[in-house]
Amino acid sequence: MSQSATARAYVNIALVKYWGKRDLALNLPAAGSLSLTLDELYSTTTVSVAGGDDELANDQLLIDGELASAGVLNKALRVVDPLRARAGLVGRPVSIVSDNTVPTAAGLASSASGLAALTVATAAACGLDLSLGELSTLARQGSGSACRSLFGGFARWDAGDRDDGKDSRARPLFDRDHWDLRVVVALVSSRKKSASSTDGMGHTKATSPYHAGFVASVDKDLDDAEAAIGARDFSALARVAERSCLRMHAAMLAADPPLSYLRWQSWRVIEVVRELQRRGVAVFFSADAGPNVKLFCLPEALPAVQQALSSLCDEGLLEDTLETRPGPGAEVLEVSS
Amino acid sequence: MSQSATARAYVNIALVKYWGKRDLALNLPAAGSLSLTLDELYSTTTVSVAGGDDELANDQLLIDGELASAGVLNKALRVVDPLRARAGLVGRPVSIVSDNTVPTAAGLASSASGLAALTVATAAACGLDLSLGELSTLARQGSGSACRSLFGGFARWDAGDRDDGKDSRARPLFDRDHWDLRVVVALVSSRKKSASSTDGMGHTKATSPYHAGFVASVDKDLDDAEAAIGARDFSALARVAERSCLRMHAAMLAADPPLSYLRWQSWRVIEVVRELQRRGVAVFFSADAGPNVKLFCLPEALPAVQQALSSLCDEGLLEDTLETRPGPGAEVLEVSS
Repeated sequence: MSQSATARAYVNIALVKYWGKRDLALNLPAAGSLSLTLDELYSTTTVSVAGGDDELANDQLLIDGELASAGVLNKALRVVDPLRARAGLVGRPVSIVSDNTVPTAAGLASSASGLAALTVATAAACGLDLSLGELSTLARQGSGSACRSLFGGFARWDAGDRDDGKDSRARPLFDRDHWDLRVVVALVSSRKKSASSTDGMGHTKATSPYHAGFVASVDKDLDDAEAAIGARDFSALARVAERSCLRMHAAMLAADPPLSYLRWQSWRVIEVVRELQRRGVAVFFSADAGPNVKLFCLPEALPAVQQALSSLCDEGLLEDTLETRPGPGAEVLEVSS
Repeated sequence: MSQSATARAYVNIALVKYWGKRDLALNLPAAGSLSLTLDELYSTTTVSVAGGDDELANDQLLIDGELASAGVLNKALRVVDPLRARAGLVGRPVSIVSDNTVPTAAGLASSASGLAALTVATAAACGLDLSLGELSTLARQGSGSACRSLFGGFARWDAGDRDDGKDSRARPLFDRDHWDLRVVVALVSSRKKSASSTDGMGHTKATSPYHAGFVASVDKDLDDAEAAIGARDFSALARVAERSCLRMHAAMLAADPPLSYLRWQSWRVIEVVRELQRRGVAVFFSADAGPNVKLFCLPEALPAVQQALSSLCDEGLLEDTLETRPGPGAEVLEVSS
């Protein structure tokens, strides 16, 4: 008889960016990062571990109804295998069914929510009761940024310095109720991006003369961001978040050949943010390994932000906008056996 | 009786970028650079040194018919003063009249052509017969990139290592007939830019964690570019020129606060270049301290480039396009006394 569990985890957006690994196999980052988990954008994942009498012959993974490639399955197994071993279930195939409320692989962090949900669901399906810190360490091995989606609100991922990566995990800083921020995603494109984050990080580290400078600048950004969030100082957070975002993208632009996830429409959105800021609107931007731009604002700034993005939608520059706010941590929805 | 001379010098566009000074007073660069002097875009400058009986009481400078500010006049005097002293004309006021065929201070290198023309005209007006190398060293003190406009075609500015800057000057690499390249300027805006190059360089050096990486990457770019031009290898030159351009702009984007001379329209032009390249069109881009993008292409690629930019003009994204080719060095047009 099979045993199964369903879990949900939410995407997170880095305010201090993660870009570059010190260990590829273990997904160990070259520097720390800091993020906000978002509401409404999540992955729901069900993991079923086959019983001795089940028909399932091999591990399999369905994402949004489609069978995943071997590469994506292998990423998932980096999380599943250690848990299966720990529970004494080696040789028992798993079936994983994961659904995202966000476009997949478009720089909207679906791998963060997906791998976090997978970690929580697998542990539950295997009957393991692990701490959030342990789950975070495990989720990291599937997708680095997934380790932050274990927690609601603001989380900080400590790079760690151990070779085995056991100290490289996220920890909660402030919960979702700490600060009523709003997040609006300017959706330039929901298409799958051309270069994966892992490939982009590797290329940047190998060929950009700026990657070392990026890594060296992160510690100050982490401390500045944590202090700004603690004090709910919007303009201080805006400064460090935009700085970190632009430095990440600038490090890629300096690679050889250059790497640019941002498109001209993304730069247009950034100019619109600058214009709003000049008018005194409390808003700032961030963008990840894709063309979409995320706008963070205070609740009172939301109408001005919506209006500006709506104009860009009318011009055909944006596919859509998504509106959200700080979200909860990962949670188990159901366990059955 | 006054003595006067008129000279002309052409703008140059750096293919390997100059961004950052090791000495502000002497305009000594942190690294070398390499440029192409352009035809048709030039400054024509007349320098008149007052005779003992003239009415002119003070040095004065007119650019495009307007009296220049004290700051701009002081830049010009950095060139004039050493020549006036050398000719034994200290205390004799100069009148400078300079006209540009290009928009002033819009990232179209009018200061390079202007200061180069000023240097050549002043030397001639003072009756000094100096070598091009000496003139290049002098022009550099007015505006760094001016030292390259002494020469036609391709020139390389050696950073030099002397504290007095006497070895920091440009030298000719290949004359204008070496390679029939075409240059099309995509004019996003002809308005004066908000931050001068000197201020932008200083801010980048002081606050960007990438400036040291930029400087360290220049030597390889210089050698790669010189080899590509020598072999007339278009795709090799495209790679190094785009790399150098993007690294310059990326170093600024990483400054705190960030500095961006490129606008979203500039990024749109860059994407159009990428599209042309995918279609096999021999074209590459460069951009300087302004929003305008310069497209370099082989003659046979010109119709495709013109057509693409013409579409952008129709969309209202570009003010205009300017078309040119490799240009001559600075020259004296007239001397009278």
